[in-house]
Amino acid sequence: TTVTVFEILERSWASLDCSLIDMKIEFGVKPSTGEIVLADVIDSDSWRLWPSGDKRLMKDKQVYRELREVTQEALDTVKRNFEWVAERVKLLIPKPNARAVVFMGSASDMPHCEKIRTSCQQLGVPCELRVSSAHKGTEETMKILAEYEGEGIPTVFIAVAGRSNGLGPVLSGNATWPVINCPPLSGDWGSHDIWSSMRLPSGLGCATVMFPEAAALCAAQILALNDHVIWGNVRAKQLNTWIGLKEADKKSRNDK
Amino acid sequence: TTVTVFEILERSWASLDCSLIDMKIEFGVKPSTGEIVLADVIDSDSWRLWPSGDKRLMKDKQVYRELREVTQEALDTVKRNFEWVAERVKLLIPKPNARAVVFMGSASDMPHCEKIRTSCQQLGVPCELRVSSAHKGTEETMKILAEYEGEGIPTVFIAVAGRSNGLGPVLSGNATWPVINCPPLSGDWGSHDIWSSMRLPSGLGCATVMFPEAAALCAAQILALNDHVIWGNVRAKQLNTWIGLKEADKKSRNDK
Amino acid sequence: TTVTVFEILERSWASLDCSLIDMKIEFGVKPSTGEIVLADVIDSDSWRLWPSGDKRLMKDKQVYRELREVTQEALDTVKRNFEWVAERVKLLIPKPNARAVVFMGSASDMPHCEKIRTSCQQLGVPCELRVSSAHKGTEETMKILAEYEGEGIPTVFIAVAGRSNGLGPVLSGNATWPVINCPPLSGDWGSHDIWSSMRLPSGLGCATVMFPEAAALCAAQILALNDHVIWGNVRAKQLNTWIGLKEADKKSRNDK
Amino acid sequence: TTVTVFEILERSWASLDCSLIDMKIEFGVKPSTGEIVLADVIDSDSWRLWPSGDKRLMKDKQVYRELREVTQEALDTVKRNFEWVAERVKLLIPKPNARAVVFMGSASDMPHCEKIRTSCQQLGVPCELRVSSAHKGTEETMKILAEYEGEGIPTVFIAVAGRSNGLGPVLSGNATWPVINCPPLSGDWGSHDIWSSMRLPSGLGCATVMFPEAAALCAAQILALNDHVIWGNVRAKQLNTWIGLKEADKKSRNDK
Amino acid sequence: TTVTVFEILERSWASLDCSLIDMKIEFGVKPSTGEIVLADVIDSDSWRLWPSGDKRLMKDKQVYRELREVTQEALDTVKRNFEWVAERVKLLIPKPNARAVVFMGSASDMPHCEKIRTSCQQLGVPCELRVSSAHKGTEETMKILAEYEGEGIPTVFIAVAGRSNGLGPVLSGNATWPVINCPPLSGDWGSHDIWSSMRLPSGLGCATVMFPEAAALCAAQILALNDHVIWGNVRAKQLNTWIGLKEADKKSRNDK
Amino acid sequence: TTVTVFEILERSWASLDCSLIDMKIEFGVKPSTGEIVLADVIDSDSWRLWPSGDKRLMKDKQVYRELREVTQEALDTVKRNFEWVAERVKLLIPKPNARAVVFMGSASDMPHCEKIRTSCQQLGVPCELRVSSAHKGTEETMKILAEYEGEGIPTVFIAVAGRSNGLGPVLSGNATWPVINCPPLSGDWGSHDIWSSMRLPSGLGCATVMFPEAAALCAAQILALNDHVIWGNVRAKQLNTWIGLKEADKKSRNDK
Amino acid sequence: TTVTVFEILERSWASLDCSLIDMKIEFGVKPSTGEIVLADVIDSDSWRLWPSGDKRLMKDKQVYRELREVTQEALDTVKRNFEWVAERVKLLIPKPNARAVVFMGSASDMPHCEKIRTSCQQLGVPCELRVSSAHKGTEETMKILAEYEGEGIPTVFIAVAGRSNGLGPVLSGNATWPVINCPPLSGDWGSHDIWSSMRLPSGLGCATVMFPEAAALCAAQILALNDHVIWGNVRAKQLNTWIGLKEADKKSRNDK
Amino acid sequence: TTVTVFEILERSWASLDCSLIDMKIEFGVKPSTGEIVLADVIDSDSWRLWPSGDKRLMKDKQVYRELREVTQEALDTVKRNFEWVAERVKLLIPKPNARAVVFMGSASDMPHCEKIRTSCQQLGVPCELRVSSAHKGTEETMKILAEYEGEGIPTVFIAVAGRSNGLGPVLSGNATWPVINCPPLSGDWGSHDIWSSMRLPSGLGCATVMFPEAAALCAAQILALNDHVIWGNVRAKQLNTWIGLKEADKKSRNDK
Repeated sequence: TTVTVFEILERSWASLDCSLIDMKIEFGVKPSTGEIVLADVIDSDSWRLWPSGDKRLMKDKQVYRELREVTQEALDTVKRNFEWVAERVKLLIPKPNARAVVFMGSASDMPHCEKIRTSCQQLGVPCELRVSSAHKGTEETMKILAEYEGEGIPTVFIAVAGRSNGLGPVLSGNATWPVINCPPLSGDWGSHDIWSSMRLPSGLGCATVMFPEAAALCAAQILALNDHVIWGNVRAKQLNTWIGLKEADKKSRNDK
Repeated sequence: TTVTVFEILERSWASLDCSLIDMKIEFGVKPSTGEIVLADVIDSDSWRLWPSGDKRLMKDKQVYRELREVTQEALDTVKRNFEWVAERVKLLIPKPNARAVVFMGSASDMPHCEKIRTSCQQLGVPCELRVSSAHKGTEETMKILAEYEGEGIPTVFIAVAGRSNGLGPVLSGNATWPVINCPPLSGDWGSHDIWSSMRLPSGLGCATVMFPEAAALCAAQILALNDHVIWGNVRAKQLNTWIGLKEADKKSRNDK
Repeated sequence: TTVTVFEILERSWASLDCSLIDMKIEFGVKPSTGEIVLADVIDSDSWRLWPSGDKRLMKDKQVYRELREVTQEALDTVKRNFEWVAERVKLLIPKPNARAVVFMGSASDMPHCEKIRTSCQQLGVPCELRVSSAHKGTEETMKILAEYEGEGIPTVFIAVAGRSNGLGPVLSGNATWPVINCPPLSGDWGSHDIWSSMRLPSGLGCATVMFPEAAALCAAQILALNDHVIWGNVRAKQLNTWIGLKEADKKSRNDK
Repeated sequence: TTVTVFEILERSWASLDCSLIDMKIEFGVKPSTGEIVLADVIDSDSWRLWPSGDKRLMKDKQVYRELREVTQEALDTVKRNFEWVAERVKLLIPKPNARAVVFMGSASDMPHCEKIRTSCQQLGVPCELRVSSAHKGTEETMKILAEYEGEGIPTVFIAVAGRSNGLGPVLSGNATWPVINCPPLSGDWGSHDIWSSMRLPSGLGCATVMFPEAAALCAAQILALNDHVIWGNVRAKQLNTWIGLKEADKKSRNDK
Repeated sequence: TTVTVFEILERSWASLDCSLIDMKIEFGVKPSTGEIVLADVIDSDSWRLWPSGDKRLMKDKQVYRELREVTQEALDTVKRNFEWVAERVKLLIPKPNARAVVFMGSASDMPHCEKIRTSCQQLGVPCELRVSSAHKGTEETMKILAEYEGEGIPTVFIAVAGRSNGLGPVLSGNATWPVINCPPLSGDWGSHDIWSSMRLPSGLGCATVMFPEAAALCAAQILALNDHVIWGNVRAKQLNTWIGLKEADKKSRNDK
Repeated sequence: TTVTVFEILERSWASLDCSLIDMKIEFGVKPSTGEIVLADVIDSDSWRLWPSGDKRLMKDKQVYRELREVTQEALDTVKRNFEWVAERVKLLIPKPNARAVVFMGSASDMPHCEKIRTSCQQLGVPCELRVSSAHKGTEETMKILAEYEGEGIPTVFIAVAGRSNGLGPVLSGNATWPVINCPPLSGDWGSHDIWSSMRLPSGLGCATVMFPEAAALCAAQILALNDHVIWGNVRAKQLNTWIGLKEADKKSRNDK
Repeated sequence: TTVTVFEILERSWASLDCSLIDMKIEFGVKPSTGEIVLADVIDSDSWRLWPSGDKRLMKDKQVYRELREVTQEALDTVKRNFEWVAERVKLLIPKPNARAVVFMGSASDMPHCEKIRTSCQQLGVPCELRVSSAHKGTEETMKILAEYEGEGIPTVFIAVAGRSNGLGPVLSGNATWPVINCPPLSGDWGSHDIWSSMRLPSGLGCATVMFPEAAALCAAQILALNDHVIWGNVRAKQLNTWIGLKEADKKSRNDK
Repeated sequence: TTVTVFEILERSWASLDCSLIDMKIEFGVKPSTGEIVLADVIDSDSWRLWPSGDKRLMKDKQVYRELREVTQEALDTVKRNFEWVAERVKLLIPKPNARAVVFMGSASDMPHCEKIRTSCQQLGVPCELRVSSAHKGTEETMKILAEYEGEGIPTVFIAVAGRSNGLGPVLSGNATWPVINCPPLSGDWGSHDIWSSMRLPSGLGCATVMFPEAAALCAAQILALNDHVIWGNVRAKQLNTWIGLKEADKKSRNDK
């Protein structure tokens, strides 16, 4: 867990051009239950930061630790450093310049799309839902797509169309940014419907996932390439999944 | 065969508001081979016509047959009638006010589409081929469709798109006239690709056939509802198919 | 909406050999809700009509508008024109010379067939239902088909047969007019049953749709080729679908 | 092998109301190869026959064996018995009152049907081939079926129709005798085409096999219920199959 | 209906070597409902019978009708003839020398097998049910099969095995009489399970049907080849099916 | 075409914080063939640039055009501006800070992977190929993945694994950046193999495409979100596809 | 039943290097119900044992039976022999040096895995359950596997992973002992999911079963190769299955 | 590589109740190519062995190394130890008490089965091939199986049956040892045929693999549970596979 927390913070500071050098987190054992609990806050006291990776610019208590004598000037330096850090911490979780836009071919796909939006939000990805049919509102669909591409915010498009999926391929054929098909598949016909998303003519780059949570995670992993906050959310989700498996394994062994 | 010939001519004259009352065709047996051969021409001598179904207006040799005496006036009447028939026969095979337009999503589908065109021509249906992709040239596709619908010539659209068929449904969602999907299916993937043509959202009326000859025949049967020449071609094709089966059966029995 | 209304009326008048030249419809904004409402009746006051496309024969109030003086004769002309219009308006919605006939192989398919009939009626297509099995009542099926083809009313046949579909192909092999297969597919076996409708030997032109509403729409689009009332219904349905999508999109954005 | 030969002869004599009581066949070992070879002819010398299962009527050399003295009368009895046997042996392999009739929907299925005919002939089942399409020659198909059912010869019908099989079900719906579907399935579409033979509405009893040899064997097994010659052929074929397996096993062990 | 009744009786008498020459059945119209009802009994009064097809041996009232005078001798002849007929009528519905035996691989398939038995019984085919697994009780299965084949009663075997069908092929590989697979297919896996019944190695002649009623009808059609009572039941079932369709069609037209 | 060229250049200059205000390209008609040809070079003469969108900083010939008099100072300004532009043009096509890494499970998939690499290179995406099996070299696979994620270059991973795809899901479960499955599907088994890439447990975000060109295009569209050169390549490819379709359509009409 | 009991005991004694020579079990008929019941205990009185197959070392009452006179020495020998047997009987059912370990990819598969454990226990196979995902906890999975392989207890691994099965192949690629896939298949997707367990790259030896009881039986049959107790359990289960079928058959005949 | 060699030798000595304590292998770098080559023989000089894990019984040169003085007695001890080792080394690769027996349903499956035998032999598993059909030679199949089970050599049965697999399930239902289905699947029908091996009724434990090499590896992994030579072969094969992947990866990077 410590490693994951470090990785996330390191990448966050890196986005402000600071190297996070080292960091500690203290854990304790809760005597009553034997659980390991976090016994620490994570603050400027617990880490060392070097702006631009330059040790001489270090902005943390280490300055204070390395002082031979405690002078007012040194204290001021520490204080200034802490102020500098406080200011930058505010920048660590910026409003993301990224988003997912879900197109659905029919309002009846709303519950499926809302699952995508919820999963996006849990990963810190802003998400908008639109209803537009490539078959029955072709020109309208093109117009909405053009508006989103024109706004300049990096956007992953997610196409949700039941039965024969014309929406994702039409979007992808007219977009320069990535389109993810996430068709709402029923058991009866899903294995037939999927092919309209997969068997695409040349010149189309849209990819397909089968589950709404996966569509959101896919969009997050794409946007994580250039957004450290979303990256941190993806990384944290992985850690939680791993912990969940460990706990389930432990439980299964006790049930024996 | 006589019945089929009569039905086709009856419907042709009906398109000019004339009732074809009866008709004969003479056949002979070719002594050398035992084949039955047509031993007749079909002309005004062999039938009786009543304009508007009114016997008094009859326009054929019957007038002559029913005369008690051969007067010049009667002969003139016969002559005038024959001239009247000759004039109208020219109208029996008009240039059809109907057509099929084949949209293909890729130029690589050309051989498949040419089979459709050839079959259409054999059934007397004018046929045009267009290359246009609903995925990669969406707006262009809409524009071409609008031009054809705007011209006022009754048109059956045939959509030929391999893999995921977005073309047929996009055309159908934007057209008021019938669209027939005729995807060029390969053995490996055909049974998966077909569903993109079949599993359509509500509000789309396009139907699907699997073979190019069937697409042409389907278009001809649709246009035959209001075009007696195409109707006659469809009817004649059926007769030929039936004769072919009879001959094959006879041959299979002789092989025994 | 105005464009669609104009297109439908233009085509209706065209069926009586009149050019509808221009037309207005007035809309207002309902202050309480902000909805746009139709604030007009569509009558001879709101359009200009030129019989045979000939301006000199114009049959509307424009005659009145263009008069330099209001003479009794001019008023009479206007009155005569209005009477002429009134008479022809009655002809605009004629009883259609067209129909759909649904054959079902078993009475147990009745609910499926009734959906087809209901959808047909909403599109102005008269629709009859028949029970006849190509397997178990082969000769009866042929006889019923021959009766319908003999009546001369342009007819689209719709074949509804569960499991192995012998009905559609047998009808199509014996008919000159179009046959649409609309098998009642269940989830379990539908993807297997469909092939009996699709994989047809050469010489058959019947096409297939999967949903009863689509069968009706397909029949309507076929008959719309030569019937302006049905054409108008198809066109209006498209407009309503488009409006429904716009409203759903608006709602999805507000839910955000 | 002896048991099988006995069973076949026993059933053959039973068809003439004679009990075959016992029988011997002599085998020898061919010294050069070690093969076991038949060293006997099967004739009246090698068996005992009791007409109507009545020992007193025995018709074979046993009469001679059981004589205390060789009188002329006894020899005459033996001679008469042998003549009686000779006469009946001629009846043992009668021209069968049974047949298979193969209907094919298209002459292109001829090679498939010829395999059926060849296999039928190897099993002693007379076999006729007919070309007739249930879709395109419906009435002709019904007429041919009626002729065969009217002739009174017990007949198994075999329906061979590629793609969607309308032929077998239409035959079965109009026949009282058994119909076997044997569709000529290709690898690409066979698994889809098969369902048109299998998924049949209620009231049809036709069964399906996948291979032409199996269709012939199925017909033979049906006719074997009441024809001892065909029964003997089926039984002999089983024995040969079993011997073939034993030889292949022996060879596989030697290859080790 | 009259034709069907005649065909069934003709074939029944033929089984006793009598030609049924002609026959009448009287129907009446029930005034209250307009229904046509049978107004007759079928007895020796209503037909003519010629033993061995020889008119001189005629055994019915016709003898009486053709008499010039009514003598005691003639009356006695009529009486003797009637007695002769009465005696033979008892033979018309003999206990059949035929049966179906259903093998099921598991007792859990009992409801499926009971449907087969019920349908068999409705067609006059005696039917026995056995539980025996070719996988888990292989030798037992072989032993039961041998017992049935040894009894000499013409038997159609029906194999009912869920999942992978080893039962039908193992029975068929060891039987000389026909085996019909009738696997109890569920929706989820039926389309996969069917192949174990269809894709059989060479040398097996068992055929497959999907529905229990069809298995019974198939068995009946096979046994009808040599049993006129079962033939009559099959023929009557066809008539009833045809009548049911006519009634359903009439009802569908009235619902219009 | 002009619009596309403008869009690509505008976005390129935007990456250097310059607004491309307007631009011209001159085309001519080649008299011999009627083709439209580019008759221009694109340079600083043909456009106007405003650094930081600030008109006062304009860096192009417009400065010269707007001069009232041609002074040395003005000429120097123009010259300085042109030098400034020349310097920055060098920065427009930087070595991209992005890449695709293709993992293949077996060296036998190399031809498939080389198609991906070729397509990547055509879109300006650096691409590396690695052989590593998630089944047989699990730990090695994890180690290679960790090295790539550790290098900090935004990377799209493409997993190429035939048959059961364990590679893509194992990569995705251990990666924070996007993984695209691109299984090399054969016709026989492709429709079965695909599901191992699609039917994934929760917590995995990898998406799937079926064709190698599509995998490369998908990777390019993802990286285009933050790389204007790759964006320009994607945009140009779309234009070329659109032009290809137009030419094919023109050709198909001439073939008529 | 006697044969099966003998086989099981014979093999048990063989594991202690003793030949069980013969044995009796007495049965009686329960008069009230006619059931056959076991009327015996199985002990040293009812069998003969020859250590190392050497008759001279026989350890049972036979020594006593074969005595000519009953001496104290002889009685002591018998007594010593019985003590020797008693001691060894304790060894006949040892704690098995074998086990099955079930890996499940998700805790949601617990009910499926518990069925495997229950079936294992009924067959005397110790069974442990573990939760570990090859996709999301790859390294953990490898570590757990290595621990089990390192312990030296012969182990059959059973992999339970829904949807795409990465678990079984990853285990098998890293194990030297057998891995059995037993995916928890649902009806809707099972026929697609199965392929991820079947279509494996070269170098993997894991096999697949569809049902949890079958996985346990498969593991037991593997371990039965070297464990006579498990062997005995498998043999007894077969006997019980066979008896169950006989009883069901008897019941089905009585229901007739 | 050293670790793998040690593991294999350790397990081999363990089968003789000796602990292999440590071991060295010397490698050198071939200057011309840079390849690492084995520069050592593996003999008693390079390892230490403790019989029964008891250090005092050590049987190797270590005795010599630990001597304070070289006495004749000590040398004799070393010599005796070396002789002791030489004797036991002969036992390290015993003729295995294990085998695979391949049943094929038809001699036409011989090439498939020979691939299994070749792979078995490469893994040190003796392998016999038998031809026997469960359908057509049911009793013969049972007899052969009983012979193999009666011989007491631990045996893995492999069932090879094309189309519908009755062989594997019939073997498994009658065997106590493991049965592996390895059906020879063609592309066209393989995905249908597989289900006859998978969808088995309760009470059968046979498992399925798709490829002949996998069947052999599966059998080897099963027999490796109690045979250290086979275990060593499996372990060595894994190492070779891993090395092959590393080399292929290196090559793919150089091709870049």
